[in-house]
Amino acid sequence: MPNIVKVDSFLNHQIDIDLLDEIGKEFYRRFEKYGITKIVTIEASGIAIACSAARYFNVPVVFAKKHENKNMDADVYQVTIHSFTKDKDYVAKISKRYLDSSDRVLIIDDFLANGEAAKGLVSMVGMSGAEIAGIGIVIEKGFQNGGKALREKGLKVESLAIIENIKDDEVIFKESGRK
Amino acid sequence: MPNIVKVDSFLNHQIDIDLLDEIGKEFYRRFEKYGITKIVTIEASGIAIACSAARYFNVPVVFAKKHENKNMDADVYQVTIHSFTKDKDYVAKISKRYLDSSDRVLIIDDFLANGEAAKGLVSMVGMSGAEIAGIGIVIEKGFQNGGKALREKGLKVESLAIIENIKDDEVIFKESGRK
Repeated sequence: MPNIVKVDSFLNHQIDIDLLDEIGKEFYRRFEKYGITKIVTIEASGIAIACSAARYFNVPVVFAKKHENKNMDADVYQVTIHSFTKDKDYVAKISKRYLDSSDRVLIIDDFLANGEAAKGLVSMVGMSGAEIAGIGIVIEKGFQNGGKALREKGLKVESLAIIENIKDDEVIFKESGRK
Repeated sequence: MPNIVKVDSFLNHQIDIDLLDEIGKEFYRRFEKYGITKIVTIEASGIAIACSAARYFNVPVVFAKKHENKNMDADVYQVTIHSFTKDKDYVAKISKRYLDSSDRVLIIDDFLANGEAAKGLVSMVGMSGAEIAGIGIVIEKGFQNGGKALREKGLKVESLAIIENIKDDEVIFKESGRK
């Protein structure tokens, strides 16, 4: 099955601002009752989406930074994440100053496939002692196992669109999970 | 003079959403009469600011992507940018599909110091044939020469805060350019 879904005309190279706003609003609708205090994402393409949602929640965004070097700073939560797209490892860091056990976190990202980035974010938020209220994803590749693995951990994963299959250049979506 | 101004509590690691909105609004105030059709920035920390401004202008954002590899794709505008912070070169790319000679572009970034990133963006927008209406910067290090170089090219550079000097851990701002 093809592994690349191009969304760079509206989401991760060029950004459609009206769509971005609707995405933020929808994440708010799905998580507004969870007492979110912070939205956590990872650079680069998660940032716009997280900021759009954060306007509705009226909370700060913290975005994990990607680094080449694996030097451990004393004041960061740090994980190593494998990128299947780029076929290499990178290090993601979040400063301890911006996340602690008083926080209730909504994790947001543009894509969920194998779930490596999301698992890395879950892991860093866990280190901080903060509670994870849930994970908001714009597009989940339902035919890969990231979503399943995260849900089996008991995490609430809300994906706005789930791709069930890609056949002959046609993208087949799962029926909307909208309630 | 120290070279690092840390803004990661509100701008480029944790993001203050109210401040972000005010920044976007202020860029709109300064450039609303210029018929902007697109906002161009570079990943990662320019994205949030560009999206905030884009809501006011009601135009799409295009963010240049940073790459390690220098392979030239046929369908991109591409430049090599030197990062003094990281002391290395990287390649920035913008797909030709999202920028052309019908566009009037506002370039936005969080910092302006030596101006390497801004010059790279100016260069890529130039390749597209689009017109550059101006450059909006959140924090300019006035004691470095990027701003001067860009203004000498005739570009309208609007920096919301200009740091004139840093002395004994105190940041001295230039009097506001607000009109």
